[in-house]
Amino acid sequence: MSAAVMTYDRNVGRWEPNARGRLERAALELYLERGYEQTTVTEIASRAGLTQRTFFRHFADKCEVLFAGSKWLQELIVSTLSSAPDSAAPIDAVCAALQAAGVAIQEGGDQARQRQAVIDANPDLQERELIKLARIAAAIAVALRERGVADPAASLTAEAGIAVFKIAFGRWIIQDGGADLPELIKASFEELKTVTAGS
Amino acid sequence: MSAAVMTYDRNVGRWEPNARGRLERAALELYLERGYEQTTVTEIASRAGLTQRTFFRHFADKCEVLFAGSKWLQELIVSTLSSAPDSAAPIDAVCAALQAAGVAIQEGGDQARQRQAVIDANPDLQERELIKLARIAAAIAVALRERGVADPAASLTAEAGIAVFKIAFGRWIIQDGGADLPELIKASFEELKTVTAGS
Repeated sequence: MSAAVMTYDRNVGRWEPNARGRLERAALELYLERGYEQTTVTEIASRAGLTQRTFFRHFADKCEVLFAGSKWLQELIVSTLSSAPDSAAPIDAVCAALQAAGVAIQEGGDQARQRQAVIDANPDLQERELIKLARIAAAIAVALRERGVADPAASLTAEAGIAVFKIAFGRWIIQDGGADLPELIKASFEELKTVTAGS
Repeated sequence: MSAAVMTYDRNVGRWEPNARGRLERAALELYLERGYEQTTVTEIASRAGLTQRTFFRHFADKCEVLFAGSKWLQELIVSTLSSAPDSAAPIDAVCAALQAAGVAIQEGGDQARQRQAVIDANPDLQERELIKLARIAAAIAVALRERGVADPAASLTAEAGIAVFKIAFGRWIIQDGGADLPELIKASFEELKTVTAGS
């Protein structure tokens, strides 16, 4: 999910290839090895073979390494939603947008699973993850209103979509490589249709 | 939502009627008047005509005044869910349990609206509210599994139920006394059925 870019490291006086990606990988490794709380920015930079100064050019703090992708993911979801055909039912447009997010997450390989393991081990990070999802739900509701969907349908579809995404992502994580995330998202939307229809 | 109980205040050497309720009302008043951050426990106790010591016999801190009811609400939802007839569809059992919570919230009069105004003004409290709702969703999923509902249906129904509850509660808050919360919950479940069915 991070673009491969060259970063000029002023401290060592050379251009570092993909400093951001290296910092992300180093941080995840350290968070898993010794715990998120116990890891310092100095250690992350050192593991990545970069300076602290380079770290702070990319991230505000060690928490942001885990959440910098959220904004990007939200933008991807909103733009996919906005470009859905007018004829698409809101729930189907939201499903397609979340599937696009699923494709992107899956392309990141093990990163999403490692990130989730770090988050699962830390209550503060779990809170931040909940906030992230609530923000994405709010952004989806705004995008639906822009498509002409009235409330409460817009908010309900957005919240239901995020509920489905959480369940599908959780199923994908525990299946450990044996499942396709976009397919699980689609299947969970179908399941939601079944459970809401009732007996 | 708080039982009217007599509390013995050791500092003033007498039994105080409904100290807990008085502390809750005093806290809400102060949070709304001067802001949550700016209010101290000393001020809350003083406004309630009680001592700090009495405050701490009822609440761990000034945040708990706002969230002490959550555990009680969760227990009400879970017990209502567990006592639903076996023949009830999971989504209908969850709807009935959340309607029971709606009745209890409504019986508290203005308290829920005042509490929400305090929470809306403070990002930290908004996070805690999200955590509270996530916990209730997890508890509903457990109760559904105990009723024999398999996953992912149990988790999906629980998450969808909380999504519906959030929307209905938000609608109730803005209608400012002009609506019935349990009815709004029921209507939002119907709306969810409509939006998930798609075009």
